[in-house]
Order: sequence, then C-alpha cells, then structure tokens
Amino acid sequence: MHTLILVLDLAGTFVFALSGAAVAVKYRLDIFGVLVLAFAAGNAGGVTRDLLIGAVPPAAIDDWRYLAVSVGAGVVTFAWYPHVERARVPLLVLDAGGLALFAVAGAQKALVFGLNPPMAILLGMLTGIGGGMLRDVLVSEIPTVLRAELYAVAAIAGASVVVLGDRLDLPPTAATLIGAALCFGLRVVAIWRHWRLPSRDSAAMG
Amino acid sequence: MHTLILVLDLAGTFVFALSGAAVAVKYRLDIFGVLVLAFAAGNAGGVTRDLLIGAVPPAAIDDWRYLAVSVGAGVVTFAWYPHVERARVPLLVLDAGGLALFAVAGAQKALVFGLNPPMAILLGMLTGIGGGMLRDVLVSEIPTVLRAELYAVAAIAGASVVVLGDRLDLPPTAATLIGAALCFGLRVVAIWRHWRLPSRDSAAMG
Amino acid sequence: MHTLILVLDLAGTFVFALSGAAVAVKYRLDIFGVLVLAFAAGNAGGVTRDLLIGAVPPAAIDDWRYLAVSVGAGVVTFAWYPHVERARVPLLVLDAGGLALFAVAGAQKALVFGLNPPMAILLGMLTGIGGGMLRDVLVSEIPTVLRAELYAVAAIAGASVVVLGDRLDLPPTAATLIGAALCFGLRVVAIWRHWRLPSRDSAAMG
Repeated sequence: MHTLILVLDLAGTFVFALSGAAVAVKYRLDIFGVLVLAFAAGNAGGVTRDLLIGAVPPAAIDDWRYLAVSVGAGVVTFAWYPHVERARVPLLVLDAGGLALFAVAGAQKALVFGLNPPMAILLGMLTGIGGGMLRDVLVSEIPTVLRAELYAVAAIAGASVVVLGDRLDLPPTAATLIGAALCFGLRVVAIWRHWRLPSRDSAAMG
Repeated sequence: MHTLILVLDLAGTFVFALSGAAVAVKYRLDIFGVLVLAFAAGNAGGVTRDLLIGAVPPAAIDDWRYLAVSVGAGVVTFAWYPHVERARVPLLVLDAGGLALFAVAGAQKALVFGLNPPMAILLGMLTGIGGGMLRDVLVSEIPTVLRAELYAVAAIAGASVVVLGDRLDLPPTAATLIGAALCFGLRVVAIWRHWRLPSRDSAAMG
Repeated sequence: MHTLILVLDLAGTFVFALSGAAVAVKYRLDIFGVLVLAFAAGNAGGVTRDLLIGAVPPAAIDDWRYLAVSVGAGVVTFAWYPHVERARVPLLVLDAGGLALFAVAGAQKALVFGLNPPMAILLGMLTGIGGGMLRDVLVSEIPTVLRAELYAVAAIAGASVVVLGDRLDLPPTAATLIGAALCFGLRVVAIWRHWRLPSRDSAAMG
C-alpha cells in the first residue's frame, strides 16, 4: 500500500516535471535550466506544503528518488522535445492525473499533520498547483493557473472530498479514490470544453 | 486583549488582501487568480516571518479566519471593482494602517521567538512588505516597494520603536502603540508629500 | 577554525550582495531596493537551504552580521556604482570564489543535518545559486543561471567532492579545500573561455 502511494507520487512528479522541462525548452534555457524547471514543477507544490505544515525536511528533499524522476523527465524532454511537443493532448490528460493525485495526497498529508478542514483543502490545492506556479514565475510569466481554464478548482474539489470523507469517518481509501476521480474528471472535461473561470475586463471599466 | 490583536491582525489582512485583489483584476486574472493574489498579499509577509522564526504551521495556515478574510476581500473586489478603484485614497490610508499593524506585530512576534534586535526589526519590516512583494512577483512586476515612495522605511521605523521599547523595558503596549503611530504617520505623510527614497540614474552613468 | 568559516561565509555573502546591489542599481531601484537585493542575493541560497533541512532560524536571520555585511555591500555599490561597474572582471572572479565557498559549505551543512549524498550535493548547489535566482526574479528576469554560461555545474562539482570525501572518510578539511578549488577553477575557466551548456533552439523545431 505504502509502495503504491510512493509510486503514484513519483508518477505525478514525473508528469509535472515534463511540463516544467517543456516550458524551459520553449524559453531556450540551457540543459541545466531545463532540469531546474523540471524539478521545480514536479516538486515545489509538495515542498511548500511540507514547509508550511512542518514536515521537514520535505519528502522531495529527503528522498533522492524525486530528484531522479525529475531529472529523468528533464533529460527525456531535452532529448526528444519535438515528440514531447507533439504529445500535447495525452500530456494534458496525464497532467490532469498528476493534479488529481497531488491534490488528494496533499490534503491527506495536511490532515495527518493536524490542519483544520478548510486549510487542508487549501494545502491539497497548493500541492497540486504550486509546482506550475513556480515554473511560470521562473520564466517571468504570470502563472497560467491564475488566469486560464479551470484547473485549481478541480484540485479544490478533489481535496474537499478527502477532507469531507475524513469528517464523516468514511474509509480513507474510498474518499481518496472518489476525490481523485472527481478532480481528474473535472479537469479533463474543462480541457475538452474549454471551461474557464470568469474574469473582469478591467480596461472596459477604467 | 488577545482578541483585540487578532481582530487588528485580521483587519490588516483584509486591507492588504484588497490591494492584492485589485492588482489581480487590473491584470485580468480570473476569479481564482483574484483570490490567490488576495491571500498572497494579505498573508505572505506573516507566513514568511513564521517560517523564518520557526513558528510552524504559520498562523495564516493554522487559522482558517485568515483565509476567510482574504477570500472575502477578493470577492468584494471582484464584485465591486469600480468602487474599489474609485476608493484609491481611502484605501491607501487603510493600507498605511495595515502596514503599521503588521510591522509592530511582526517585530513583537520575532522578539518573542528570541531573535536579536536588528533581525526583529528586519522581520517586522518583512511582515509588512512581504505580501505586496509576492503580489507583484506573481503578476511578473518588479515589487513597487523596491522602487517607489517611502514605504518600507515607515515599517522599519515602527518596528524599531517596538524593539527599542523592549530593550528599554518600556511597557509593550505603549511601545507598540507609539511604533504603530509612527509608521502610520510617516507613511501617510509620504503619500501626501510624495516622499521618495533616492535612486541612481544608472543610464546617465553607463 | 570556526571563526575562519564564519569569516569566509561573510566574505561570500558580501561578494554576492555586491552583485545583487549592482543589478538593483541597473534597474533603477531606490536605495531600499538596492539593500533588499543585496540581502537577497547574499543570503537567499543559505536561507532556503536552512529552511529545507530544518535549521531554523536560518543562520542569516539569527546572526545580524549577515545583515550588516549585506547592507555594507549595498551602500558601497550605491555610493560608488561607477567604480563597481568598472570592476566587472575582478568581481566575476570574486563571485566565483563566493560560489565555491557557498557550494562546499552548503553541502557540508546538509551532510551534518543527515541528508543523503545526492540531496546534499543538490543543497550545496542551491546554496550557491539561490541568491542569484531570487535577485533575478525580483527584477522580473529569468534567472541568468538557468540560461547562461557554466555556473551551477561548477557548484555541483565542488559539492560533489565534499560529499564523495564524506563517503570515503577523507579528512573533511581536505575534501572541502579540493571541492572549493575545483568549483572556483571550473567557474573561472568557464568565464574566460565563454563555456556554455547546450540548449535547444526550440523555434527551429516549432
């Protein structure tokens, strides 16, 4: 069971690291920059969560396998970028899987460390979106998650199921699976239907 | 007394969160981005301070009311942006109040955690300016506090009074009130008189 | 011996703080912005390392001398910017010295806190490059280290010697000196020969 969680966590890290490496190549960073963005995108969410809840050193710093998986994703992207680029749609679906996994695992870990329900949901979401935010800040862009598509809301939904399940004493495995499925489903439908959150056109209001 | 501090702290968070949300609307972020910037601007200073002094989990992560207040400020700004925009001057004055409060409370908390005087002043200042810095970084701008007007200096002045009061064994409440009044006064006069710190015109020197 | 390490650490902080202050002047920040970038460039690498390994409060927050040295570097740069600008080459060599020192000291400290070999190398590198990364993010630029010249690789090489020496039970002082010399030498040759890491020209692949 514990091994399964680790494998899923490393799989999520790999998928997110691919997105970081792809952004780095697009911005013409060198191979080192590609590896840094791979590691940042794959691990910054979990590392920030761990710092905030006091789980120090964070898992991604304590266990070298997170580094190995991130470097692997970076090297693959650097070596075969045209193929990675062409696999955009399957990668978006994999990314939705990574988001689902990180959101429920993040919320679960926050509950274990005694955080109250709303903050556990927030930290589940942060685990899911933090890596992508740092990735975008490092290439001097406004994080995509703040302005495009429905992404964080899917993470909030998934994390909420985990936290609600905990309050209602549901079996954790069931709540985790349902939460992950909800997050994944919402995100995939959002990609497919181009769902977006509302924004104000401030220029028109000036 | 303790309730009063919490109320003041939440009031400061609300005012700073308004500034974060207003920037987010100006950059056309979606409603989620507005809420993230509200939370970041309202809480990043205190969270960073708490991580640095070892107060984990940080207050803003442990207590859901900071999240609630930040979300409230975000929703208000999103719904009534034109009114928020028009209230620029009163909001600047309120922001000066938030700065004063965060600077003295931040310095006080750093002293409680055993930091030495100069670093307690630094952390008081960081509590006051950290949220605005992260807000600006997230929309890919150079933080305003680094290049415009007299802002951080007011926070340093307020925090210094608290730390000096502690060294001289003055009653903490008195030192806190004087420090907050000094910070608030300096900041308001700086807005009114357009006081700025010097900078070098590096282009002329090339 | 301990005093020597502190002196070297403060020297590295001073050199890095000069680079932060110089960037701040170039971006026309005010004197406060210059001091913030000096402190950030001089200390962010070590502070991040300390947060990640659980050494709280970080050395640069606990000991006011890091602040004093950083402020000193900022004031010097602000007052005599044309001279600092003209001293570009000697400063690059001094910066290579700072990098060497931070990389080996960072790896050493990570080992003391029980991190495993690959992560100790990673943290040594982070100690060396973290300050420059935050400096660049604060002026809204993509960190230079991610796209130019051979910089981080030198830090990795130096940190690796320290970690390898620890595994082979070599005397720590010898491993530290060799690691620092290797890092410094690599970096200086990289500046001299304009060595760069490879990057992909993604535009040609679109």
